[in-house]
Amino acid sequence: MSTREHEPNASQANHDVRMRGFASRTTVEQALCWIDEHACPLESQRVSIHAAWQRVLANDVVSAVDVPGFDRSMMDGYAVRADDTSGATPYNRLPLHVVGQALPGVEFPQEVASGQAVRIMTGAPLPRGADAVLPVERVEVDGERILAQDAVVRQKHVGVKGEDIRCGDQVLPRGRRLRPQDIGVLSSIGQAEVEVIRAPRVRIIVTGNELLPAGSLPSEHRISDSNGPMLTSLVTRDGGVPEHPGIVPDDPESILKAMQSDVDVVLVSGGSSVGQEDHAPVLLATHGELPIHGIAMRPSSPAGMGRLGRRVVFLLPGNPVACLSAYDFFAGRAIRRLSGNPTEWPYLTVRLPLCRKLVSTVGRVDYARVRMNGDAIEPLAISGASLLSTTTRADGFVVIPADSEGYPEGTVVEVFCFDQR
Amino acid sequence: MSTREHEPNASQANHDVRMRGFASRTTVEQALCWIDEHACPLESQRVSIHAAWQRVLANDVVSAVDVPGFDRSMMDGYAVRADDTSGATPYNRLPLHVVGQALPGVEFPQEVASGQAVRIMTGAPLPRGADAVLPVERVEVDGERILAQDAVVRQKHVGVKGEDIRCGDQVLPRGRRLRPQDIGVLSSIGQAEVEVIRAPRVRIIVTGNELLPAGSLPSEHRISDSNGPMLTSLVTRDGGVPEHPGIVPDDPESILKAMQSDVDVVLVSGGSSVGQEDHAPVLLATHGELPIHGIAMRPSSPAGMGRLGRRVVFLLPGNPVACLSAYDFFAGRAIRRLSGNPTEWPYLTVRLPLCRKLVSTVGRVDYARVRMNGDAIEPLAISGASLLSTTTRADGFVVIPADSEGYPEGTVVEVFCFDQR
Repeated sequence: MSTREHEPNASQANHDVRMRGFASRTTVEQALCWIDEHACPLESQRVSIHAAWQRVLANDVVSAVDVPGFDRSMMDGYAVRADDTSGATPYNRLPLHVVGQALPGVEFPQEVASGQAVRIMTGAPLPRGADAVLPVERVEVDGERILAQDAVVRQKHVGVKGEDIRCGDQVLPRGRRLRPQDIGVLSSIGQAEVEVIRAPRVRIIVTGNELLPAGSLPSEHRISDSNGPMLTSLVTRDGGVPEHPGIVPDDPESILKAMQSDVDVVLVSGGSSVGQEDHAPVLLATHGELPIHGIAMRPSSPAGMGRLGRRVVFLLPGNPVACLSAYDFFAGRAIRRLSGNPTEWPYLTVRLPLCRKLVSTVGRVDYARVRMNGDAIEPLAISGASLLSTTTRADGFVVIPADSEGYPEGTVVEVFCFDQR
Repeated sequence: MSTREHEPNASQANHDVRMRGFASRTTVEQALCWIDEHACPLESQRVSIHAAWQRVLANDVVSAVDVPGFDRSMMDGYAVRADDTSGATPYNRLPLHVVGQALPGVEFPQEVASGQAVRIMTGAPLPRGADAVLPVERVEVDGERILAQDAVVRQKHVGVKGEDIRCGDQVLPRGRRLRPQDIGVLSSIGQAEVEVIRAPRVRIIVTGNELLPAGSLPSEHRISDSNGPMLTSLVTRDGGVPEHPGIVPDDPESILKAMQSDVDVVLVSGGSSVGQEDHAPVLLATHGELPIHGIAMRPSSPAGMGRLGRRVVFLLPGNPVACLSAYDFFAGRAIRRLSGNPTEWPYLTVRLPLCRKLVSTVGRVDYARVRMNGDAIEPLAISGASLLSTTTRADGFVVIPADSEGYPEGTVVEVFCFDQR
């Protein structure tokens, strides 16, 4: 680790405050503004359409072909000249001579003349000369003839060239998060690949000498990492590609090396506050910039954010609820923006009345875990940054703004629901 | 292909009706009942917690450990006996002798006696004898002593053993679709793996001699497969594992072989109706059972469903809108049920008034593509089963029940929105 001193400036808050708490805290709004300024959609990358579902289009997509590229039958039946069927009814059956069969994928070799019909399957190109399809239910077969029992007008049961998509049509707009049917349309116009916003690579750095690797049985004085696997899922949800090779030793050299990974976003969980052993803020301020450290919210107040080279770096508290909340408020937003996804939370919301009062403190945003209790909202916890089970018992959370003392019983509040569709 | 005749029975509709249309159609409700009867959650499988996000728990999860497994400090500060701080204020600073430092992950080797303090970091186990933590902000350091400037009560800033999760607690219920924080909790109780409902394997069979492989540039009389990549995305969305090795030749032997894949669900796109060249219904009725073929809905009326051995088989129309709608009404429901996911559509809904009338036909369910037009709903298309672009131009769809003739302008309708969060 370099010991070069970094020249502090006014925008780089508090990194020299050691063991003394935060001198002042950034508001949540200021932190969100900083993110929106520093996290914009990445450049594009080409991916196979088979890997493009839910990716975000980097460009408008314009079709270079007609779909279908030819007139085709929409029914099983007989390709005819519509005029030949004029006046046909079950009581006035009109004979037509069957001259062959039109199959899907193959051009019928001859032109259909008046008085002729061609047996045709759904999807087969309409033979030249024919201009309508008489459905099989409307004819009687009589040797090499059919007897038409119904009249059809021109283009009846014909899918005309370009009726789905015309050459030159814009089929999908830039910024579109690709749906299953969009993938189908891309395939139908012959795009095997598509330009999408590159998915940000996200290095997850979990530090803490008290930590055992994720999923280890906790031993006497150590706990098992919960933030690594939680953050991995969250990053995936938000369109990032997580990298979490394991717990990083809690020393400046190891942490700096991990922070310098070839990624777009760095998440540091643990050692993010202003204690003597909190290396990441000092490293970030020294080798990059740390404009925001300490945020007026609960939990997650020790969170910070800055840049290291082209990387956007988030310092997340080690306490798991604070880590989740800091991720959701800040890091997730940045990852969604970098990947071209909507900035907003991916949570459904409901508005329901509180069954008990919900108390908060003026001057900070509170992240209150709540439970649905019938048609009412039951507050579960505001404090308890280390109690991850409060977020698994909860159905969602309520955000209490900084200027609010909370809400009395019966107030209708907006709940962000953890369950996603 | 076996040519053995299958004895028809009343519940096996229409497979012997060749080129003559469907004798009668099953209602959508009857088809949904059949699915709910034949698609129940699969057995469980063990997966790593790193692959468990959004999977569905097969069992209740009970913790075999306390989290944390020891009393620990929640602050950087000094572990003390609370009684020793009684009466301390900035004007009445009480001296304590610092006898060492407690680090995370390590047991402090000695007992703290009255008059003593141990420098302690967040997350470190509380030394024996100490019962509270005095935050670093509340002391003045004076050589090997600290001067306490504040009183703390017992357990202040201490995270007690089991305060997050107690040994024996049920931490997550069976049937839970795992959230990011659930993965964190599983990790924290030492579960490296978890029992989840097995994800159904789904073979996608796309047939049609007019088809080119997905993403091919359409040639003169052939179109490019759009259903394969669309169904692949849909199956993934609903918790299935899609298998789509390419277009299957449109002959009975090839289709039967593909239908007999080692999978839980078979989707056949194309050749699903009652035409001479529609092999799949005959194969299914002959080698398995085809209780439902022909459904009173538009599009997708040629859809069918049945069983082949333990496989649930869906016959989906080749026309892409009809394929999408048949998937969404029927196959998707089965895949969600098999994987333990909610049966309901994964679409958000909104209720808004129609800006134009929406006409339907009594006797069948209609799948109407609509667009949001400001605060109103604009109908785009009901017919046009082959026009996939109607589903990409649309923002969602309205389902018009079989007993309705449609809705006049201004009627508030429920829209299922294609965009997912």
